[in-house]
Amino acid sequence: MSGNTIGTSFCVTSFGESHGPAIGCVVDGCPPGLALTAEDIQIDLDRRKPGTSRHVTQRRESDTVEILSGVFDGRTTGTPIALLIRNEDQRSKDYSEIAQTFRPGHADYTYWQKYGIRDYKGGGRSSARETAVRVAAGAIAKKWLHERYGTVIRGYLAQLGPIVVPFQSWEAVADNAFFAPNAGIVAELEAYMDALRREGNSVGARINVVAEKVPVGLGEPVYDRLDADLAHALMSINAVKGVEIGDGFASVAQKGTEHRDELTPQGFLSNHAGGILGGISTGQDILASIAIKPTSSIRLPGRSINLAGEPVEVVTHGRHDPCVGIRATPIAEAMLAIVLMDHVLRHRGQNADVRCPTPPIPGQAPR
Amino acid sequence: MSGNTIGTSFCVTSFGESHGPAIGCVVDGCPPGLALTAEDIQIDLDRRKPGTSRHVTQRRESDTVEILSGVFDGRTTGTPIALLIRNEDQRSKDYSEIAQTFRPGHADYTYWQKYGIRDYKGGGRSSARETAVRVAAGAIAKKWLHERYGTVIRGYLAQLGPIVVPFQSWEAVADNAFFAPNAGIVAELEAYMDALRREGNSVGARINVVAEKVPVGLGEPVYDRLDADLAHALMSINAVKGVEIGDGFASVAQKGTEHRDELTPQGFLSNHAGGILGGISTGQDILASIAIKPTSSIRLPGRSINLAGEPVEVVTHGRHDPCVGIRATPIAEAMLAIVLMDHVLRHRGQNADVRCPTPPIPGQAPR
Amino acid sequence: MSGNTIGTSFCVTSFGESHGPAIGCVVDGCPPGLALTAEDIQIDLDRRKPGTSRHVTQRRESDTVEILSGVFDGRTTGTPIALLIRNEDQRSKDYSEIAQTFRPGHADYTYWQKYGIRDYKGGGRSSARETAVRVAAGAIAKKWLHERYGTVIRGYLAQLGPIVVPFQSWEAVADNAFFAPNAGIVAELEAYMDALRREGNSVGARINVVAEKVPVGLGEPVYDRLDADLAHALMSINAVKGVEIGDGFASVAQKGTEHRDELTPQGFLSNHAGGILGGISTGQDILASIAIKPTSSIRLPGRSINLAGEPVEVVTHGRHDPCVGIRATPIAEAMLAIVLMDHVLRHRGQNADVRCPTPPIPGQAPR
Amino acid sequence: MSGNTIGTSFCVTSFGESHGPAIGCVVDGCPPGLALTAEDIQIDLDRRKPGTSRHVTQRRESDTVEILSGVFDGRTTGTPIALLIRNEDQRSKDYSEIAQTFRPGHADYTYWQKYGIRDYKGGGRSSARETAVRVAAGAIAKKWLHERYGTVIRGYLAQLGPIVVPFQSWEAVADNAFFAPNAGIVAELEAYMDALRREGNSVGARINVVAEKVPVGLGEPVYDRLDADLAHALMSINAVKGVEIGDGFASVAQKGTEHRDELTPQGFLSNHAGGILGGISTGQDILASIAIKPTSSIRLPGRSINLAGEPVEVVTHGRHDPCVGIRATPIAEAMLAIVLMDHVLRHRGQNADVRCPTPPIPGQAPR
Repeated sequence: MSGNTIGTSFCVTSFGESHGPAIGCVVDGCPPGLALTAEDIQIDLDRRKPGTSRHVTQRRESDTVEILSGVFDGRTTGTPIALLIRNEDQRSKDYSEIAQTFRPGHADYTYWQKYGIRDYKGGGRSSARETAVRVAAGAIAKKWLHERYGTVIRGYLAQLGPIVVPFQSWEAVADNAFFAPNAGIVAELEAYMDALRREGNSVGARINVVAEKVPVGLGEPVYDRLDADLAHALMSINAVKGVEIGDGFASVAQKGTEHRDELTPQGFLSNHAGGILGGISTGQDILASIAIKPTSSIRLPGRSINLAGEPVEVVTHGRHDPCVGIRATPIAEAMLAIVLMDHVLRHRGQNADVRCPTPPIPGQAPR
Repeated sequence: MSGNTIGTSFCVTSFGESHGPAIGCVVDGCPPGLALTAEDIQIDLDRRKPGTSRHVTQRRESDTVEILSGVFDGRTTGTPIALLIRNEDQRSKDYSEIAQTFRPGHADYTYWQKYGIRDYKGGGRSSARETAVRVAAGAIAKKWLHERYGTVIRGYLAQLGPIVVPFQSWEAVADNAFFAPNAGIVAELEAYMDALRREGNSVGARINVVAEKVPVGLGEPVYDRLDADLAHALMSINAVKGVEIGDGFASVAQKGTEHRDELTPQGFLSNHAGGILGGISTGQDILASIAIKPTSSIRLPGRSINLAGEPVEVVTHGRHDPCVGIRATPIAEAMLAIVLMDHVLRHRGQNADVRCPTPPIPGQAPR
Repeated sequence: MSGNTIGTSFCVTSFGESHGPAIGCVVDGCPPGLALTAEDIQIDLDRRKPGTSRHVTQRRESDTVEILSGVFDGRTTGTPIALLIRNEDQRSKDYSEIAQTFRPGHADYTYWQKYGIRDYKGGGRSSARETAVRVAAGAIAKKWLHERYGTVIRGYLAQLGPIVVPFQSWEAVADNAFFAPNAGIVAELEAYMDALRREGNSVGARINVVAEKVPVGLGEPVYDRLDADLAHALMSINAVKGVEIGDGFASVAQKGTEHRDELTPQGFLSNHAGGILGGISTGQDILASIAIKPTSSIRLPGRSINLAGEPVEVVTHGRHDPCVGIRATPIAEAMLAIVLMDHVLRHRGQNADVRCPTPPIPGQAPR
Repeated sequence: MSGNTIGTSFCVTSFGESHGPAIGCVVDGCPPGLALTAEDIQIDLDRRKPGTSRHVTQRRESDTVEILSGVFDGRTTGTPIALLIRNEDQRSKDYSEIAQTFRPGHADYTYWQKYGIRDYKGGGRSSARETAVRVAAGAIAKKWLHERYGTVIRGYLAQLGPIVVPFQSWEAVADNAFFAPNAGIVAELEAYMDALRREGNSVGARINVVAEKVPVGLGEPVYDRLDADLAHALMSINAVKGVEIGDGFASVAQKGTEHRDELTPQGFLSNHAGGILGGISTGQDILASIAIKPTSSIRLPGRSINLAGEPVEVVTHGRHDPCVGIRATPIAEAMLAIVLMDHVLRHRGQNADVRCPTPPIPGQAPR
């Protein structure tokens, strides 16, 4: 319970620091029989990786993933799948100032208080670089859910700083660097980001994620509800400060007649609940939304203290995302996929679908 | 991992249905030596219990708690503390209609889909009655945190339907039936609720919770962050649809210069982060906010289907809260206390403070 | 992870002290639909309860179990089943001497060192009285396994002190107070126990347990093997000092040609492995054996120290079992049942068998 | 809970197959500040690695370990430590026969039944090769326990097939290929193994492990006792069929006067309990013993079936250990170390000892 594992039946154990030799994870609990190659995982890694546009960090990482175990003749075997991503661009620089200073808004201060020691190079373990691991593990969950249930998990940028992005189409999402579901707004987003970058400041964002074709009955009452586990997984993403399911905070001002989703023999008439009732999936789309804070790594000076407790002024140099929300869409999708897959396996068992191809030995007990 | 336990070091395992013989829990992991009586727990139970004003359900439950184990000569021993609350007012009525129908917005449909069987009396396990157990367990955590660290955990109603409640003072909270931190607004809240009750409708609410004097260093990276575990615990409360830490969704439109909390030798200059950086407590106040949906148990008719899949019209009779948010403040406080205590014990160990009163046997290994 | 819960999918959380108000447990994860009454559980409790012969403790406890939750209209619902057993015979006596002294061979010293406080009445939490809870929870597992797979779980006394008990028949087991599978040896066992009681001493025992008609494929590699989890569960029983699976320690002197169980199209030709290969059940009978130490509660004086560290002589008065192994058979059966059921649910899921009686809403995602 | 993680506070998650690209693990929960290099781990890996004498498998693996994360400037940081060992000698051969056949005594049959697919090359995940990972993780635990408490963990071969090895000295253990604590018996062991190898057969072994200078108070009642967790960890080692704590099965024939360990102000007078009372460490030496079965990979033919259910004769070729017990001593030591460290952290917390070097910010809550 050391905090680097998520899931109880589909378990992802993450490791690695931003400027260490490698990052990676062990995915334990994937059912046997899934066709899986490194390419299946690379697709999502490439959607998240740095350096893909001028609006994100210019760190150069190919984020090439290697599958170390758990796959045999192209198929998963039910044993742990270890994924390894070597760090490539740990730029050599002078870290002595960072080593002595707590950057405001960063985890520098809390890691040092908690552990009495910290890897100050690039944020170490608290770096958003760790999220590559989530995307890699999530790609496995996405593929399994899609093959088994036809589940489709997608996300998009719903707001960038002050700019609300109206949903137009899923097709638009892949056509711009922002995961914006609206081609017409891209120019405005680009202009805003260019100005922000010149200013040396950062800004927040809102990401929405949706899962379609979700099995009904997922989620364990009372504490391990599907929505509670989703809130945990999404809030565990770096920089997330809020999570909503369905109508979220809009529910506060709603009346019962408005919020409750009526049923007919043809199905539900609305989805204010976001596909979850009593903590259990209804079979409707799962709808979740997250708030991402503006990153604290900015060029504008801020007040802080150093290890000696003296006041200092901090300016963050280096290669940073002025809006970490821009690359957050694949990460939020991954966390949604991981939670859904975990709950499918809790509900149905890891091997509930296994049917051995030949008859068992006579006299053996039935499966 | 069947979902009815929360916590990894301070573990609360809940049981009981709304109209069964009893509800209760086992609290495992409370350190030894805490002075504890049933009265300590009853205080918070009485704040949550039904029937305390005309604005909440009129079900009559004394919610009297019995400590069955784990306390010896008035002090906790480190062994599990079992708490029992007998149900007293399971009104006898005809449940045949509810048994055949899925009430819209309720967990009737999902429980039935998940389990193929459901306790339809009063919602069974999905009833908000289960939250009494959380409050009881939370009272232990509150007391321990207060005695050990001076931690104070409090909450209040921040919004009721359309009415935003400006924070005025903590003193005001105990003086009204709404946990409103503002004496001047109580008449408006009462009038709103009276009208709502006459209308037969329900409404949502927002609750804020605050923990003061929190130890620094709580929270495990990367997944079991303090904020992620808080999001899990708060989202696991019945009817919660959104969770915010610190500035929450307001962070979306903020810039980095605004959001990051600067430090000086005298302390932090602001608390946009809500007391958590990189998933670890900073020692500042923990700030969280939740959105509670309007309950679906209303007198106004709604469309649904029955077990045969035929369309029906559902009207909920019986004793229900027109705003479950009104009684939610002690519940949210309890979940915050449980999560904080769990993380203290993860960080420091359950017996890190135990110092035996006499010297160990010579030759024994040191503790 | 406070140590009072066993299982990951079928979770038993135990509470209660020997001389407190009650003992009990919460059984979380039992699949829905199992017909269950208190009588089903009472059968096994009565097999273990004290006072049933002159060879066991004369404490008078009816061990009457109450089901507090999780059962509706006579069937389990999938929600937690809370079981309560009130203590009835907490004989009032002077505990001041025990409170000041560490009885040799007991947990007095270790509890005090660990917690700095201990419930010294009747051993508190370390008392064998806690095993009633295991038997109650195990009765549910036994019933479910039997109904679902026809699994039969039985145990017997294989050795009492120096007396080896040759297995004759399962029928004999129920016909004597020792769970001896051999009617002809009962007189010898009785004579031995009578002499032992007069002497004021105690003795050890060996219990064998067997599960027949076990599903193949149970057990998770690498750490949570079925045999490893069985060893954990059996070694967790009070006074157990050794666990064997299959041939156990006899394997040390065996050769590969002797130990390996050959297969034919008609099945395995032997069962040296005890029904487990690579940590996974083969479908053969599961065979396990445990060593139970002689209880340390004896009338013969022993040297110890008191809280002040001074030497004292300890004589244990009161009502104790001269051979705790005599009542251990139902306990070992229960632990075997709990582990098997846990692994069935890990393998197949808690609700893998649920088939809803009517078609889901059109357009809903498949289960 | 997919079974490839052991520990709750000191968690080892293992991955890798015998003939895949690599094996390794993630060690999560190691406290910050431990000086750690790959060489510290390599020492124990070299004690276990194949090819070190003619009595073990001739597979050529350097078992070179790489630390991928969690260590900064030569010290652990409290974040996950990932360890990687590349497989080097996956001899290319024809596996078609093994792919179609279930070798008797192996996990071939159970893996195939469980997963419906198996990695048949060298046993895949069920291979004893996985134990290298345990030794690597255990080396970290050993070092930490030794630095923090002076704990020394050692093991030795107590019996090889029919040959009982009398304990003579710890010094002898390192001087022979068998980990035998007795120089005088080595010639007999060598002669026995040479004859066995010529015969093409295999044999079992008994290994004893001892931990000295163990903190008192480790172990959680009731289920997660130190002895129960030790039994789990030791039984999880490939080929182990029995576990004893202290006197183990000899306790069966003992009387209470013999078994109970008396106390004096100078300490315990004996250690029949093996250093654990009521599931909690006494501070005495921890004593455990395991039975290892003869490996089933032998050159002598055995009956089995193939995938089609037809009878076949199986002869195992390739490079195998005729007695897997010979290399098991470091593995048993590692598991003992892992369990002890896990329980220290459960008892005291992962960061209970962290003391930050400079004063916290004024006004911050105390740690």
